[in-house]
This record gives sequence, C-alpha cells and structure tokens, in this order.
Amino acid sequence: MKKFVDDPKDFVPQMLEGLALANPDTLRYVPEYNLVHRVDTPSDDRVTIIQGSGSGHEPAHVMTVGPGMLGAACPGDVFAAPPVEYVFETAKRLASPRGVLFIVNNYTGDRMAFEMAQELAETEGLDVRTIFVDDDVAVQDSLYTVGRRGVAGNFFVMKAVGAAAEDGASLDELVRIGEEVNAVSRTMGLALTACTPPAKGEPLFELGENEVELGVGIHGEPGRERIALGSATEMVAALVDPVADDLGLAADDRVALMVNGLGGTPISELYLAYGIAHKLVTGRGATVARSYVGEYCTSLDMAGLSVTLVRLTDEIERLLAAPADIAIRVF
Amino acid sequence: MKKFVDDPKDFVPQMLEGLALANPDTLRYVPEYNLVHRVDTPSDDRVTIIQGSGSGHEPAHVMTVGPGMLGAACPGDVFAAPPVEYVFETAKRLASPRGVLFIVNNYTGDRMAFEMAQELAETEGLDVRTIFVDDDVAVQDSLYTVGRRGVAGNFFVMKAVGAAAEDGASLDELVRIGEEVNAVSRTMGLALTACTPPAKGEPLFELGENEVELGVGIHGEPGRERIALGSATEMVAALVDPVADDLGLAADDRVALMVNGLGGTPISELYLAYGIAHKLVTGRGATVARSYVGEYCTSLDMAGLSVTLVRLTDEIERLLAAPADIAIRVF
Repeated sequence: MKKFVDDPKDFVPQMLEGLALANPDTLRYVPEYNLVHRVDTPSDDRVTIIQGSGSGHEPAHVMTVGPGMLGAACPGDVFAAPPVEYVFETAKRLASPRGVLFIVNNYTGDRMAFEMAQELAETEGLDVRTIFVDDDVAVQDSLYTVGRRGVAGNFFVMKAVGAAAEDGASLDELVRIGEEVNAVSRTMGLALTACTPPAKGEPLFELGENEVELGVGIHGEPGRERIALGSATEMVAALVDPVADDLGLAADDRVALMVNGLGGTPISELYLAYGIAHKLVTGRGATVARSYVGEYCTSLDMAGLSVTLVRLTDEIERLLAAPADIAIRVF
Repeated sequence: MKKFVDDPKDFVPQMLEGLALANPDTLRYVPEYNLVHRVDTPSDDRVTIIQGSGSGHEPAHVMTVGPGMLGAACPGDVFAAPPVEYVFETAKRLASPRGVLFIVNNYTGDRMAFEMAQELAETEGLDVRTIFVDDDVAVQDSLYTVGRRGVAGNFFVMKAVGAAAEDGASLDELVRIGEEVNAVSRTMGLALTACTPPAKGEPLFELGENEVELGVGIHGEPGRERIALGSATEMVAALVDPVADDLGLAADDRVALMVNGLGGTPISELYLAYGIAHKLVTGRGATVARSYVGEYCTSLDMAGLSVTLVRLTDEIERLLAAPADIAIRVF
C-alpha cells in the first residue's frame, strides 16, 4: 500500500485535523465525534444541515461544510456509517430553532444511524427531518442497500438545500427542495481500478488489466457488469446512455452535467470525458446549462469517474448558481 | 494503461475542448494553437499574462485562465514545450497595449520556445517581458534544466501577478512582483508511483513497492534519492525540512503553505499530509497565514505530493488573498 498514512486507525482524525488547520477562520473540529462544523453554526435564522456517511468519499462531505452548503458533517471511519452518538451529538450541539435537516445517502448502515439519531433527538424536543438520496441508476438493490444507492448526485441536493437554507427557507421547504432535486438526479460510475482502504492495506477487489467495473458503487461494490476496457468515448457513452435513459432525458430539457472523478483519475482525463459527455447530452437535443468537472464524491484512490445529470427547473438552477464558500477552493 | 483516452494524439485537444465546453461563458478555445484564453482578453487596461509549458500538469496552466490569474495558456503536448508559433500567435492575438507578460517554468525546452517567441513578438513591436520560475529545491540541474526546475510554486507567481494585473499594474511592476514571489517560494515533491503518459502507454519509470522518489520532478525526472516508503509523518518531514531550510524559514515569518497533489493521491491524504506539514512549520515558530490543499501542478496520474512554502510580505499576502475566478471550482 503506497499511501500517506501513519497508523490507519488515525487516518480519519488526522485528515479532519488537517482540514481544521487549513481553515481556522471558518471551520471548527470536535474530535470526539469526527465533527466538522461551520464556525457560525448553529444560527437562529437558518436550519442546520447535517450530513454523515462514511469517510473515503472526500470532498464529500466534510469538505463541503460552509456557507451555502452544509452546517456540519460527522463522518464515520473509512466506508463505515457514523455511530449513532456522533449524529445525535452533532444534532444536539448544532440544532437551530428553525430545525435540523439530515441528508443521508441511501445505505442501510447510514439510514439506521440517522434514523436512530433522529428518534433520540426528537425525544429531546428537536425538530429533525431527513432526506434520503438515491441517484445511482446502476443497480436496484446492492451489497449495502435496499433500493438505489446514493452517490455523486448528493452534491446537488446539498448545494440546493444549502442555498435555500441560507435564504431562510423553512425545514418543510428544504425537505421539498431536497426531495425534488433527488427526484431529477441520476448517476452512474465506472471503475478502472479498485480502491485501497488504509486499514485493509490492499485493493478491495480485483480487476483485470483490460477489465472495467461498469456501475461500480462508491465503496467498490459490484455494478452491472464487467466490461472490456474501451476508448474514452465508449466508456463515457456506457455511462451517459443509461443515465439519460433512466432520467427520461427530453430534447427540450435543461440539465446540469457532472463528470465526477473517483479519486485516482487526473483532472485532464475528467475534462476529456466531460467533452464527450457534453456532446452525447446535447446530441439528444438537451441543453447543458451548468457544468461540473472535478472530484465531488470519491472512493479513496479509485481510478474512474461517474456521470450525473440533473434536470433543471428554474428554482433548482437558481439554487445551484447561488454562491457558496467551502474548503475545496484554490484560493 | 487504464485511462480515459481515445487516440493518444488527441488527448490534449480533447481535454481542451472539454474545458471550453464546460466554460462557454468565460473561456475561448483556438484549436490551432492549443490556445485557451479569457473571453475578455485582450484588454486595453490590463497586461496580458500568458503561460505555456507542457500538458499533463493540469490544472496548471489551462485551468488557471480567468479573472485574477492568466489571460491565456497555450500548452504543448503532454510533457512537451509548446511550439514557438503557439506562443508567438498567442502573444500576437492577445497582446494588450499595456504589454504582454510570459510566465515560464525553468525547463530548457520551454525557455527556448518563449525566448524565441518573445524575439519574434518584439520584431512586430510588441512589448513583452518574461518571468522564469524555479522554486524546486530538490536538485540544482536536472534532466531538462540548467538550474532549478519550476514546479508548484508557479501557482503563487501566477496568482500574485494576476491580481496585480487586474488592479492595473504596469508590465514593469508585474515583473518585479513575479520575481519577488519566485524568490521567496520553495517546493519539493515526492513520488509514490510513476505517471503514465497516454502516448507511451506505460509508466515512465519503475519504483519498487517500498520505494519512493524523493525530490521527483513533475515529468518523472529523478530527484535527490530513492528512499524507503515511510509513514506519512516521515515522508512529509522529508519534504518540509529541506524546503524550510532552503528558504531560511525564521521564527517570525508569515508563510503560505501548500500541499499539492501530483494527480493520483486523494484529497483525504492531502489534508492528512497538510496537518503534518502545518505542525512542522509552526513548530519552527513560523505562522501559516494562508493554506492551500489540493491539486495545483500535477504529473498526470502520479501518486505523490509536493510541499511549497512562500514567505509572505504584506504585498504578496494581499495579492494572494485577492479574488480570482477560474475553471477549477465546485460551482
């Protein structure tokens, strides 16, 4: 395993400490709960938005905490749901009188942690609602889910409800918006290589030199099938087509198009893939109104990418275009 | 080779096309010269800043074109200097009456291309100046250089002169500022794996499973030595110490600290490494006033990272903090 790791059990705490040291004016770090939160959260004026999930998907979700996006994140260890008490403590410490919104990717372990934390929080009188994200079209059920998995489309849910919360939207409004964004978001990914969790020290699965996992999950779960390594155009088409079909992409649709790197694929290849995806989408008559190229939801060091399409309404487009300020930036 | 590639000779043009498609309102792409430029360049009010170099280092430099940074970039093929005519044509098309500033990383091929283009441009009456960047402390001369190599410190030169150009600084002023930033910037990198150029189809060099190239160049050039794979703390210290020593870091210095991923290392590991680097720097009594964690100057898909320190003056700190708007963003 060639990685920057000290003791693997310290991987997540050391990452979070680095994040806090790099953003001393805007973020606070509470090591007991892997908790990273905005320095100005809780606020009396703004619903507190909290996301958890396992680590290993960075920048999701700890690096998307900030004005216009999350109020807090409390991740578990690599590819492990956060313990219930992390979520409960985060909700208690950061609850706003306007309420608390959980955003949860649809994995059984994450659902259990957040549902139990919500029950505990409600017994203490907190007003908590939860949005589940399930944008992955690859498989119906999977290793860790009943129903579809939540993957990179999560970004758009966070971004839209984050912008609305900043505008003072109520908890009910945020649930409506988040569920609407999820309902029009579709994603599928493809792995060129497996990923290596620090504590395991070796790749999670084996892929032959000319094999690709089509529809891979962000924890290395199997997808639809193993296909032969193809050209960039072939592989990107193998993602865009099922995503567009599942969304029912129509010729007069306006969409957001995301090419998301899974951790080990360089940005040069992501832009190359984006150009191919853009032509495939516009070739169907749709208009790409917003472009996203980079890493949003990764699987450690996995080489590969996912494609997400979001059908835009005026409201969603406005919320996606609103400003935000998070750790992932170049300045 | 597991990559998103069609025909390797189209790798750079397809990447640039994707970049242009993702940024239709802000960038223009001229395929004949691999030229990407701001839609609002040239300007009568602002010196035009141009950077070239080989491709394969993205986001440097094509993805750093925009307000507050570059006016244009005209890269060569992967790891190849741009042809003289690319640079000359870019200068001619985008020259401002305020002048043209070239920023060039110190590699022999890049120097030759930009120096010849400057001569050609001057015969046409253009006012051109050039800044050379040589921040890499690893080796004195190297495979492709006389003197030190230019690596990730280039970002700080671009950012500072870009901000000053936006404020209307003269060409002379920009040269002064750029040379001052270069003089206080130091970098060293380390490779865990080699990189694979698309046209070569296999890794550029071999590294054993427990070997690390300390002081690696951004084209896979040899560094100071091969060392054994160590803990994150050991490997980060092996970079911070020579960088800080070469800079002559003093206890009352204010610095910018960058941990730059080389392409294949996930952001989780970069933040983990940043935390270690931050403690080493502040352990020497210096103050980290600005933090940079992510990919700024890569080597295709190489796993590894570099550490850069920049000693800040009030002027440099102000210029680094100024706004900028480039393609690498999450919104």
